[in-house]
Amino acid sequence: MTSTAVSESDAPTDAPAGFRAKYERSVARNESLLCVGLDPDPDRIPAGVDARTFLLDIIQATSDLVCCYKPNIAFYEHDVEHGLALLRDVIAAVPDGIPVLVDAKRGDIGNTARFYAKAIYEGLGADAVTLNPYLGRDALEPFLEYEQRYAFVLCHTSNAGAADVQELTLADDGAPLFERVARNANDWNERGNVGLVVGATFPEQAARIRAICPDLPLLLPGIGAQDGDLRLAVRSALDSDRAGILVNASRGILYAGDGADYASAAHDEAKRLRDEINAARG
Amino acid sequence: MTSTAVSESDAPTDAPAGFRAKYERSVARNESLLCVGLDPDPDRIPAGVDARTFLLDIIQATSDLVCCYKPNIAFYEHDVEHGLALLRDVIAAVPDGIPVLVDAKRGDIGNTARFYAKAIYEGLGADAVTLNPYLGRDALEPFLEYEQRYAFVLCHTSNAGAADVQELTLADDGAPLFERVARNANDWNERGNVGLVVGATFPEQAARIRAICPDLPLLLPGIGAQDGDLRLAVRSALDSDRAGILVNASRGILYAGDGADYASAAHDEAKRLRDEINAARG
Repeated sequence: MTSTAVSESDAPTDAPAGFRAKYERSVARNESLLCVGLDPDPDRIPAGVDARTFLLDIIQATSDLVCCYKPNIAFYEHDVEHGLALLRDVIAAVPDGIPVLVDAKRGDIGNTARFYAKAIYEGLGADAVTLNPYLGRDALEPFLEYEQRYAFVLCHTSNAGAADVQELTLADDGAPLFERVARNANDWNERGNVGLVVGATFPEQAARIRAICPDLPLLLPGIGAQDGDLRLAVRSALDSDRAGILVNASRGILYAGDGADYASAAHDEAKRLRDEINAARG
Repeated sequence: MTSTAVSESDAPTDAPAGFRAKYERSVARNESLLCVGLDPDPDRIPAGVDARTFLLDIIQATSDLVCCYKPNIAFYEHDVEHGLALLRDVIAAVPDGIPVLVDAKRGDIGNTARFYAKAIYEGLGADAVTLNPYLGRDALEPFLEYEQRYAFVLCHTSNAGAADVQELTLADDGAPLFERVARNANDWNERGNVGLVVGATFPEQAARIRAICPDLPLLLPGIGAQDGDLRLAVRSALDSDRAGILVNASRGILYAGDGADYASAAHDEAKRLRDEINAARG
């Protein structure tokens, strides 16, 4: 994965460039809508294994089973000295053709947002990012200007507290805030590089978001460790081609084994989840 | 500035510990409500000066004029190899007794938020942070558990796009979303360590937020480069003691000079702004 400028004209020709092409190829090649979260927790990585080795082993053990990888930057930043360089190296180690979505949930005003976009797309080499919509469209724009990269905007998150703000009812149309964010996302999608984040723990809300945004890819966190109902979530969020979703699992796969078998345990759990998603997909 | 655990019982006794005590002492000692943003932009730092030298010089030139420093993490993260270590070192170089607020605008779910809090409070050694309210209370909680540190929650930001989401009218009380966030912030303030972010470019909204939250400290970005009306913003946001605000300026001070005089130019501009804020304070 190369660091590229906005024009991205120097992308290699032997592998698809840009998030969408990589995603579609991975979905087809691996028959998978499974996204694996690469979130290294020092307390859960098997004793004697360093984070770099652990993550590269997980990637190698699962790269024939995924449509995307999703490292959450929080699990790297706490190592102030080496964390971001580790993340850059982990992203570079993902086989060509599989996209990497950096879960950063960033949101800041224009000049600052440009620095974040540069960090995530050029410094780290990500194909996509998650963003927070609270600051409005102009805060997203510096990311959207990278036309080949995708920005997944938080719409309805998977946590219980999501209701505090996201489900507040708006006066003008009587619909909840997250539905307005979904509607706005259609407007923000002028370059065709916007997606949404929809917690798998809220299948009813996922179905409403899919109805509002028939064409946007949806990232679904919250299965596995967060206990969302996989089958219901998948069916609620699929697009009319029975695709268009990325179902994320992190801890359930990374820490499926707790000893030297962690890579094979991750492979087996990823395969089980991929197949379960495909069964739900029908 | 030391990295401390949640209990923070090992804080040094010769300087005030915790954000609030440091802030109040700096306000009194420097007669200042001015917060200086430490946002190094490689295109604007004078030729031949490295970011570390530049920032330490700025701190030295302004430390008798400020109530707080506010580095925005975006301006460090884009240097994947050394950025976060630089930020840690810059924070450590701030004289004891002056608080440092890391502008990170983070917001993520429980387990991940804990890693962000650890990164910012323990890894970087910050006294306070900015957070995004879109994910609700449970996403803020891991930060609020650090009782001596302050979390400034985005309420009404300084950018034009703020209206897209923050000013949407809610059905149940006919008030805009940002006022609900302000009301919620009072509830979230059980430990007395919550503040709000209110763009100086929206003085009318600042006055409404102050009316809802008479006791919370307000961070006011958006003067100087962002052209907010300083006098109006200050008067709208002051608490009943004519204090309780942090008026932030970044570019206007850091890049006041464009040559070898950058430190003295920053000092002069910081002094001018501090005095202007005090004049408005009355």
